[in-house]
Amino acid sequence: MALFTIEEYQERIRKTKTSMSEKGIDVIVVSDPANMNYLSGYDGWSFYVPQVVILAIDEDQPIWIGRGMDANGAKHTTYLSHDRIIGYADDYVQSLIKHPMRVVAAEIKKRGWQTKAIGTEMDAYYFSAKSFIELQKQLPKAQFRDANLLVSWIRIIKSATEIEFMKKAGKIAERVMQTALDTVAPGVRECDAVAEIYRTQIRGTEAYGGDYTAFVPMMPSGEKTSTPHLTWTDHPYRTEIAVNMELAACHNRYHSPLARTMYLGKNPPAKLVDTSKVVVEGCNKALEAIRPGVACEDIEIVWRKVIARAGLEKESRIGYSMGLNYPPDWGEHTASLRPGDKTILAPNMTFHMILGMWLDDWGFECSESFRVTEKGHETFANFPRRLFIKET
Amino acid sequence: MALFTIEEYQERIRKTKTSMSEKGIDVIVVSDPANMNYLSGYDGWSFYVPQVVILAIDEDQPIWIGRGMDANGAKHTTYLSHDRIIGYADDYVQSLIKHPMRVVAAEIKKRGWQTKAIGTEMDAYYFSAKSFIELQKQLPKAQFRDANLLVSWIRIIKSATEIEFMKKAGKIAERVMQTALDTVAPGVRECDAVAEIYRTQIRGTEAYGGDYTAFVPMMPSGEKTSTPHLTWTDHPYRTEIAVNMELAACHNRYHSPLARTMYLGKNPPAKLVDTSKVVVEGCNKALEAIRPGVACEDIEIVWRKVIARAGLEKESRIGYSMGLNYPPDWGEHTASLRPGDKTILAPNMTFHMILGMWLDDWGFECSESFRVTEKGHETFANFPRRLFIKET
Repeated sequence: MALFTIEEYQERIRKTKTSMSEKGIDVIVVSDPANMNYLSGYDGWSFYVPQVVILAIDEDQPIWIGRGMDANGAKHTTYLSHDRIIGYADDYVQSLIKHPMRVVAAEIKKRGWQTKAIGTEMDAYYFSAKSFIELQKQLPKAQFRDANLLVSWIRIIKSATEIEFMKKAGKIAERVMQTALDTVAPGVRECDAVAEIYRTQIRGTEAYGGDYTAFVPMMPSGEKTSTPHLTWTDHPYRTEIAVNMELAACHNRYHSPLARTMYLGKNPPAKLVDTSKVVVEGCNKALEAIRPGVACEDIEIVWRKVIARAGLEKESRIGYSMGLNYPPDWGEHTASLRPGDKTILAPNMTFHMILGMWLDDWGFECSESFRVTEKGHETFANFPRRLFIKET
Repeated sequence: MALFTIEEYQERIRKTKTSMSEKGIDVIVVSDPANMNYLSGYDGWSFYVPQVVILAIDEDQPIWIGRGMDANGAKHTTYLSHDRIIGYADDYVQSLIKHPMRVVAAEIKKRGWQTKAIGTEMDAYYFSAKSFIELQKQLPKAQFRDANLLVSWIRIIKSATEIEFMKKAGKIAERVMQTALDTVAPGVRECDAVAEIYRTQIRGTEAYGGDYTAFVPMMPSGEKTSTPHLTWTDHPYRTEIAVNMELAACHNRYHSPLARTMYLGKNPPAKLVDTSKVVVEGCNKALEAIRPGVACEDIEIVWRKVIARAGLEKESRIGYSMGLNYPPDWGEHTASLRPGDKTILAPNMTFHMILGMWLDDWGFECSESFRVTEKGHETFANFPRRLFIKET
């Protein structure tokens, strides 16, 4: 049972074919699990083996090709006719002699597409260098085109149902952040706090459940707040330290990230307190600038001006398009809120704006997930924006 | 602070260089996060952007190259001299015009390696087709060699400390499976059961914590037990259904998976009960056959003979080498217990043997993680092998 109506999938297929046509692509081979899900509904943790969704410009339905044991999973989760679900034999899996892309190529030949312009997602996760070389070797007469992000760019504007899923994720994210604030304390082991966070993420609410997030909880503390992507340890939290909490919730694979920082102790450093105020002001101002017609780079300028007044600067981007996704990233790799990105905001684009300052031996972060509305923005979670302090 | 002694890392480097020498590789560019961790100690959820560890055959220490904001993470987790940790500017991240592999190529040129034989992991996760093409374009005089699994094959035999981590994961895995058995019940939402499982995974024990696992909990129920890789929903468990539970625990990135099946109800189908007995007997017999000197394919034959007597057959492999890893797979992609795999078992190889029968509309699975000992095998978890039945 696919999660969206047939009409919604058909609309996605139609937009994908329009983009293929503009780029001169006859057949697209989609490997990115989020793009596979978007076009077919397929949802399973099987992207650790090669699998694809193939869409031909003159066909109505894509084809799913994956490991034999996952074909039943495709029957359960997609709207595809069962004759368009093709499983390959298990001796292709992590074989040192046979590559699953040979099955993909054989299917392409069987359908007479071997001389067509074939698009592949050249920089997608789970489409390896070897996968591409195998396809080239098996299909010497095909013209290969880079279709990287072709489907991802269509995903940038969400439908009403997608927005509903992200709002649900946002409500779970509020509970997740509250769990973190309640649980993290001096003497508590980092793993025990993260355990409660996971529990809240997956339980969801009484009305609907939570799904796994494309990033694990990022909870660096103390001097590790100077870098964003370390995970937890089993050491207890100390006192007089900051804890960055880059968290999220997910519902039906749609995300709503949310980041805050908490200080444990009575004496937060003045520079942390001061920076937190500037960052929150920058976040507020950047969010207020969101509306249809504005370019992504202009949002970043609003932020940059606020922090420049306080003598701060930030090299990294301040946000990115996100929504439907699988590990290792909830970001869509399309629009970013950063200098040079001229993408024009439009209603129902959805972003994670993350204002993180990671300095030499401390850091502060504050983020919001939101959609662009007709007149401005709407955040998916409703949670105070400030430095939290737990005077233990 | 790297988790192993400098001597242990030096031994890994020495073995890697021996293998490079045998394969005529002067410089290896490692992208697989587990292989990066193995050679450098690096541990962070940053593999969603291109990052590498480079080892030259005539140098003692590798180089880490990653995103600028993760360089502090590399300083925290590796044993590398800080001058061998190189961060790239943030405008390379998910850029439509600049690729991070240009930074990698520039570093290779700077060190005079641009005409060397350069090994890349052609079928590794997180080394995209585009990454390889960019490297080729920037280094036209290099001779590229496929170094896929070169480091992974060295990882196949674990050190005493690695085994200790896996044993710790095994003790957590016992608690995880018990949590599943205690929690899954008719009327309980799947997400609420999985929430408790996650909580137990991450809490670990009183003495040490748990880490995120490379797969999420796999918990298909009812007719979905016919396929292994669907994740949970927010529907309540029904009665008179089977629930497959492919779970795991992780400690310091080292895994110990464990799978069992539970039937909810008073009337388990005879074919499920019968199959469970055959599968458990096959599992027991295959484990008893484990000892140094035996080939992987011979273990599978033992299993196949047991189930053949009951008229059953299984196409897919029955196990694979595993240990240190990151999403999306705890398997190492080297040795598999399957026909044709002539890898000879040796002490401190570690496997996940998973006997799963996924038939048309139901399934049963039973697995063990173990190490090969001097005389046989030792499982990391100690948990009864049978079909569990909850008469609700």
